[in-house]
Amino acid sequence: MASRPVVRRGPKPKPGTRGTLVQAGLSLMHAEGYAATGIQAVVEEAGVPKGSFYNHFASKEAFGAEVIDAYSERTQAKLRDILTDSSRAPLARLEAYFDDRIEAFRASGYVRGCLMGNFSAEAADHSALIRERLAGHFAAWTGLIEACIAEAQADGSAARRFPAPLLADFVMNSWEGALLRMRVEKSDAPLLAFRQVVFGGLLA
Amino acid sequence: MASRPVVRRGPKPKPGTRGTLVQAGLSLMHAEGYAATGIQAVVEEAGVPKGSFYNHFASKEAFGAEVIDAYSERTQAKLRDILTDSSRAPLARLEAYFDDRIEAFRASGYVRGCLMGNFSAEAADHSALIRERLAGHFAAWTGLIEACIAEAQADGSAARRFPAPLLADFVMNSWEGALLRMRVEKSDAPLLAFRQVVFGGLLA
Repeated sequence: MASRPVVRRGPKPKPGTRGTLVQAGLSLMHAEGYAATGIQAVVEEAGVPKGSFYNHFASKEAFGAEVIDAYSERTQAKLRDILTDSSRAPLARLEAYFDDRIEAFRASGYVRGCLMGNFSAEAADHSALIRERLAGHFAAWTGLIEACIAEAQADGSAARRFPAPLLADFVMNSWEGALLRMRVEKSDAPLLAFRQVVFGGLLA
Repeated sequence: MASRPVVRRGPKPKPGTRGTLVQAGLSLMHAEGYAATGIQAVVEEAGVPKGSFYNHFASKEAFGAEVIDAYSERTQAKLRDILTDSSRAPLARLEAYFDDRIEAFRASGYVRGCLMGNFSAEAADHSALIRERLAGHFAAWTGLIEACIAEAQADGSAARRFPAPLLADFVMNSWEGALLRMRVEKSDAPLLAFRQVVFGGLLA
């Protein structure tokens, strides 16, 4: 399996060695996976000596947990920006978030998917530390989605057949599944199917 | 990350070296992942000399494709058994299939998930061969689900708001996402949420 060049999103920050290592790990682990990314590749990507890795991180597992934190922080910032923009109706905000992601995946050629979903598949069975981070961040993401759905249910623009927490979890998990299938199909069809069923049926 | 013992499902067949290698690979790659499973571990698990691996498979990638085939064959057999049992109403069959899977994941402690979903996350971006196998098998699985939904729509027991092919893909992908979240939560809650929304809302 050939290695692909790592495409970074936006300019690379200069946050010191620890942050440089986390950003390098995020790029590599998102593109190649957790198990497939060695510490050697991370320090080469970061341009730091190998010894400095273990000055900052006790293990690959502890490093992986910080990579997840960094990814989730970025995603939560975007979710929060779009989902709390009260100039738009709540379901329009939620749809705008997924449209933004669909556009980004089109631009990237339908690769990488969600790092949280990828770590769930690769590492959740094997590391309690990583599992706890994933659980915490998924709870934060779905909390933001839930608030948006609850607001739409309160103003009558979303169906109330199911409680908002249940719908938020279902929508989050369905999106993660659509991303897996997108990577197989190399097409936006699974994302558009998600969009159509969720916004044209489930929440409408 | 500690390695877990591999739990086999049912008695181990004796299908010759090639089949023994594929079954060993299926057990290991399902439990540990594709990248984390080395050829050495596969031949040890299979109890065959390492040289015999390359008599049968050109590469780990070609081997992975056969592991996917073996997993899909087993899953398709179960899907077909349950979904074509015309003694039950079509949506009751579909629900019975997912209930059977939920029970199996409860029994296993919510580990491993779906090998097809795991390979989608780990390998679909990096191997055209594996991607094509995944696409073909997902199409076969969703075809069986689609036939069941179409039958329910024809007899009036399922909603017709969306066409059966779209619903089948959405249900399949949502299930894959629910399995990722199950592995993080180590709980059946994401599977029960899937069941409630799909059978209590989307298809009802």
